[in-house]
Parts: sequence; C-alpha cells; structure tokens
Amino acid sequence: MDIQHYMQTLGRQARAASRVLAATSTEAKNAALLAMAAEIRARRAELLAANAQDLAEARVAGLEPALIDRLTLNDKGVEAMAVGLEQVAALADPVGEMTDIKRRPSGIQLGKMRVPLGVIGIIYEARPNVTADAAALCLKSGNAAILRGGKEAINANRAIAACVRAGLIQAGLPEHAVQVVETTDREAVGALIAMPEFVDVIVPRGGKGLIERIARDARVPVIKHLDGNCHVYIDDEADPAKVVPIVENAKTQRYGTCNTAESLLVARDVADIYLPEIGRMLAAKGVEMRCCAESLALLTEAGVDAGKLVAATEADWREEYLAPIIAVKVVDGLEAAIAHINTYSSGHTEAIVTENYSHAMRFLREVDSSSVMVNASTRFADGFEYGLGAEIGISTDKIHARGPVGLEGLTSQKWIVFGNGEIRR
Amino acid sequence: MDIQHYMQTLGRQARAASRVLAATSTEAKNAALLAMAAEIRARRAELLAANAQDLAEARVAGLEPALIDRLTLNDKGVEAMAVGLEQVAALADPVGEMTDIKRRPSGIQLGKMRVPLGVIGIIYEARPNVTADAAALCLKSGNAAILRGGKEAINANRAIAACVRAGLIQAGLPEHAVQVVETTDREAVGALIAMPEFVDVIVPRGGKGLIERIARDARVPVIKHLDGNCHVYIDDEADPAKVVPIVENAKTQRYGTCNTAESLLVARDVADIYLPEIGRMLAAKGVEMRCCAESLALLTEAGVDAGKLVAATEADWREEYLAPIIAVKVVDGLEAAIAHINTYSSGHTEAIVTENYSHAMRFLREVDSSSVMVNASTRFADGFEYGLGAEIGISTDKIHARGPVGLEGLTSQKWIVFGNGEIRR
Repeated sequence: MDIQHYMQTLGRQARAASRVLAATSTEAKNAALLAMAAEIRARRAELLAANAQDLAEARVAGLEPALIDRLTLNDKGVEAMAVGLEQVAALADPVGEMTDIKRRPSGIQLGKMRVPLGVIGIIYEARPNVTADAAALCLKSGNAAILRGGKEAINANRAIAACVRAGLIQAGLPEHAVQVVETTDREAVGALIAMPEFVDVIVPRGGKGLIERIARDARVPVIKHLDGNCHVYIDDEADPAKVVPIVENAKTQRYGTCNTAESLLVARDVADIYLPEIGRMLAAKGVEMRCCAESLALLTEAGVDAGKLVAATEADWREEYLAPIIAVKVVDGLEAAIAHINTYSSGHTEAIVTENYSHAMRFLREVDSSSVMVNASTRFADGFEYGLGAEIGISTDKIHARGPVGLEGLTSQKWIVFGNGEIRR
Repeated sequence: MDIQHYMQTLGRQARAASRVLAATSTEAKNAALLAMAAEIRARRAELLAANAQDLAEARVAGLEPALIDRLTLNDKGVEAMAVGLEQVAALADPVGEMTDIKRRPSGIQLGKMRVPLGVIGIIYEARPNVTADAAALCLKSGNAAILRGGKEAINANRAIAACVRAGLIQAGLPEHAVQVVETTDREAVGALIAMPEFVDVIVPRGGKGLIERIARDARVPVIKHLDGNCHVYIDDEADPAKVVPIVENAKTQRYGTCNTAESLLVARDVADIYLPEIGRMLAAKGVEMRCCAESLALLTEAGVDAGKLVAATEADWREEYLAPIIAVKVVDGLEAAIAHINTYSSGHTEAIVTENYSHAMRFLREVDSSSVMVNASTRFADGFEYGLGAEIGISTDKIHARGPVGLEGLTSQKWIVFGNGEIRR
C-alpha cells in the first residue's frame, strides 16, 4: 500500500465533502447524527465482536491493563456512543451565525459569519468511543473529518466507521464527510499532518510526547492540549469556609483528569491558619504532599502524617502527577503566586480563593491560562460544565480556541459585506 | 556573535516584558505611544540620516528601484509614522474586555476575557515604517514584540527602535516591550520562529515565498497572508447599474494591492450583455484580459481591442498579477462560480454582483474566503475600511484571525469564572 497516495486520496475526498458540508442544512446534519446512533445500536453485537478481536490481539501483545481498560467496549459503552451522537444532534448549530453587523462610513454593512474550518484531522489513542464523538462534533460544525485512532482499536474503529458512513448515506450526505484511516502504518500520521492543501487543522489527543511531536512536525495549524498543571492559590484574604472544600474538590474528586489541581500555593500570612487543616485532609485521603521547606516545616509541626510529606524539588513545580500527589508552596502573596503560576503552569486552569476584590481581578487578568477562576474548583474547566455540550479537547494554545473546545472552536469567522453597489473612493 | 544566544536573550526579555504589559493600564500604553511619536518627530534629522545611509548601501548593492522606493523615508514619511502612533493611541484598548458572562447550573458565573497573546515576532521587508506601525499595534494590544525588518533598512530600524525605547522608558514601561533584532544575519529569523517558550505567534509580512518558508519551518503558530487572488462574479441577476462600476473599482483603482480583483467570472446568460462594456472599459484603461475561449470569442466579436485580449491558460486562474491584467471566464452560473472560486482562490476576498437574495446568501455562506461581499468592490477588504483603525496584515488563514488583523486579532479570549465557593459534584 502506498501510504502517501492513500492519505492524499482521503484528503482529496475530505476536501470535496467539506464543500458540501459547509452548505448542508442543520436538519440534514442532525438526521445523519441520529441515523448513526441508530446504526450503532443496531450493530451492537458487531461492534462488540470487533472490539473483542482488538482485545485479544492487545492481550497477546501484552498491553498494560490501563490501556486494555480504555480499549474495552461493553454494552454500556456502545449505548453511551449512541447517546453522545444524539446529544450532539440536540446542540445548536454554530454555522452561519451572523454577528457584529454595522454600517461603515463608506455605506457598506460589515459583519462576521461563523463558518466551518474545512477539514479536521484527529489523531488519538486506542479509545474507540472517540471515533464516534469526534465524528459527531466535526459533522455538526460542518467540517469533514479524517480520524486516525490508535492501532490497537483498528477493528472497533472500522466497525464504528461503517455505522457513521451508513448514517451519512441515509441522510444524503457525502460518505467521505467522515473517514477513518484504515491503515495502522505510522507513516499515515506523518502524511496527515503535512497536507495543507487538504487538511485545515489537526487536533491531536493523547500523551504529551505524541502531541509535542505532532506540533513540531505538522505543516498545518494544531489545536493542542499539552498537560494540566493546575494551581489553587489560597490568598491572605481567603474566606475560611471556602478554602478546604475547594482544595479537596480540586485535588481529590478525581486524580486522573487534566483539570485536577497539581499545585497548591498558600500566602505566607495565612499558611499557619490553613495548611494544617488542608494537610490533615489530604493525608487522610492518602495524598502525598511535595512541600517547599516552609510548608514542610509547618505541616510537620502541625503533626500531619510524616509518611505523606516529601521535600519538593524544582521538578515538582512543573509536574502533572495525575495521581494522589500535590506540590505545596508558601508564597509571599498575590504577586508571587501569579509569578509562580506564569512560570511553572501549563496554562490550563488556575483558581484563587479570596474575598479581596482587587486580588480577584488582578488574578483573573494577569494569570495567563486558558481558564482562570475565583472561588471555584479547577474541576469546572470542562466542556460540559461550561455548557458547550461536548468537547473535542481542552486547548492550552493561545491562538484560536483556548480551554475547552466545543463546536464553536471547530469554526472560525469570516467577514461578510452587504453592499449596494459601493466602490472605494 | 552567537545568534542563537542573542535571540534567546531577546526572547527571554520579551517574555518578561509581556508579563508586565499584560497588566499595564491603557493610560500608560497610550502615554508610551504618544512619547514615541514625539521622539520620532524630535529625531527626524537622525532618522533621515540613518535612512540615507541605508539608501547609499542599497544603491551600491544595486537594489531595484521599487525596493529603493519602499525603503525611502522622507519628511512626510517620518510625520506619517508619528501620526500612526497617535492614531493607535486613540483606538479602544481590547485588553480586559469581558463578554458572554452567564450563570451555569453549578452556580458559577462563566465568561470570557480578552487578553494579549504574549510575545509576537514580526518578520518584514525593508520598509522602515512597519517598525513603528508594528510596535504600536503590539504594544496597544498588550503584547511584547520582537521585530525583524529587512536587512537593507537596518540603520533606519535601529534609529526608530531608539525612539520606541525612549517612549517606553518615558512612560515607565519595560524597555524590552519592543525589541528590534539588531543583527542582519539570516540565522536570526530561523531562531525567532523556533522559540515556543518565548514567542507565541509569528506574523510574517512579505513575498509569498518568504511566508511559505516561515510557515513551513516555524515551531510556533503563524498568522500569515499569502496572496490575494480576488474574484468578482457577475451573476445572471446582477443590477446593470452596479456591474461596470464594481469591476472597474475592484480591478483598476490600484493594481498593486492584495484586495484588487485578479479574476472576473460572468454568468453565461448575461455574458453577452456585460462583457463587451466591461471589456471596452478595461481595454481603455490598458488592462490586459486573459480570457477563456468563450469570453475571448465574445470580446473579439464585440470589437474590444485585440491587443488587450490573450487566451488564458490554467495558471491564469491562480495568478495574483498585481498588474493591469485580469483573468476572465464565463461560467454556467452561481454554483460554477462558487466552485471555481473555492478551487482557485487564495481565500482573500470575493464579491458577487446580484439582486437575487438566495444567490447572495449562498455566495456569502459557501465561498470559503476571509472576506465575502455582495454588491461591493473587493477593495473594501482593508483594516481601515473595516474600522479596525489599523492592521498588522490580512490573514488568509482559517484559524484564529481571518482577513484584516487589527488589535483584536493580536489578542485571544480566555475563560473566566466568578465563583462563590462552588465545587464540582
């Protein structure tokens, strides 16, 4: 198989389909999404059999249990895919929205229209449900999609792709609106990210190494999510009633999510007030604290379980643990907290706990992350919590879409002019 | 000189300055802009002397007259730079704008805040006025800037940079908020576009070859303007009174601008009505027509000056002439026009002339270019005509900013959350 030629063919077909999709009615797109959901339910046994084959091969290959877990589809997972498609059908269509229309001195009326990006390439790991989710979001936002999932899920992905294609055809949409890369050859990824004539943007989902490699080699824009080293800063004017609940929720509600807090900063003036209680709560939940010298002394003195206290190294300020571990640092106050965050954060989500208005506003304005919060848990940084309905990922980039990326992040705005024969003088 | 080390130093200084700028008041930024304008006026003789040195070296190097022309500064040019700085000071500050604030079911109030991108690298040709313009736009939008101008303008750029620095210092802003690359070594460009830790976005201005090379090699996002192959489509339901004035203005008002029409499409049903008059007007203005077989026959038959009629080749449909030349093609109608544009256009600006509502709306929706117009000249695609006050360029990209890029295009929006102790359930 000539991979370059194969990918060029997918690209050409996607580009042609994208032209049709850009002009497709909301009704037709929704009909396709509902037909896909029906196909997925109808072909449940087929999907599970394909997944069983993937799982058998994965076990032979000695895949780690966590990866096997992500790869596994069951009845519930199949139903969740179908429901996800229906949920996207229920979302408002962003395409064609006209805004900011104003008359200019020349007489023209100028505004903006929201339009699809065109063709989106999605590169992801061995999670078959992403195939259905990504197809739905791209289609609803009027984009053609080329989906390249992890090779371990190839059989399930092919089966899901068949359902997606059937749904497209039933609704009279181009069958190439969503294409799954049918080869597991790694060269396909290299080709996909280097066809600016056919692909407008790449969304990689996966480990930081993979995403960095794709961003480095891509010849098209990449909407990327690196890591989530999220901070909670306890200000010297924090409301005592809010401190422990927010830290507890931000760190311990779930350990493996990218919006989980990985670093805790506490203003020196209130460190002896809050750190002992926070330390006892975290230790009781089995969370290890990687502490600066000052917080280590304070927590030790307060009698917090020494088995949960470790001296931090410089590397801890940058770490995304995704585990019951948190970095803890005493800082001078607001300015030092902002400086620390802007130095070490991955730019995902940060929260301040304070009752001081000026501190809150400075934190909101000066912290350079995609989500910045006052008196709320970092765990809210999520497409569903933000009301986007669904998300294709969380962008830690600064241009285009920042933070949770939903349908709107898969579109852009062009300028439109309503004229009446105006010419430029 | 170790170029890599030098550029890293500029990058580190720019990053530090960008943190300060993000939190700088509108008042202080405006004070700096006005102080820069005053410095430029006060040092006029110095600027002209530096420019004279550039010009002398350019003549020795045998630079083309057109390039010499762009390189030349005179009294009027110096005053225009100062006025440009004052105009940017008068523009509204986009930074800190909060929009779309709504309460979510969880209780949090969620919205967006407009923030600077951070550090912007601008790479441009030997036009010294760009140094002042770019400095002003970056500063006003809260971004630090690293400016790399053409080597032929190095003396003028250094002199302008001194004015900019003096203005920054007078206003109490970091002197590294705007830095001009002081070496003409080409390695500096390679370094500038490959420092994601210090530079957030690159804006290249110049020839297509330069921009393509930068986009290919950059390790950070690039806001790029390739070429402007703009189309005017005369629909079968065009208003006869609007046809010739719009074609005349779009093609002949200025030949060298990127929003000038380079291709004319005419619906077959009305080709014999409009093409003769359009052809005579263009021929009278000395515009050569590169015609499809059908339009060539029609124009010849109508007696249009044969010396101005040439048979088009496939390459003509893609060409940005920047000259008194236009490609002419008869098309079946609206669908064929849209298909032709979406195949051959550079995605800059396209216009339809029509009185048919559905044709107008389909053209607006389906043409995939950064500006799409009904019954108006393509020449309106411009930051000043759009009311942006100034522009750093016109983007033919699809993500982030499309079309004329003003202050807003140099910012992005982050999510902000106003909470009251909410935690995620």
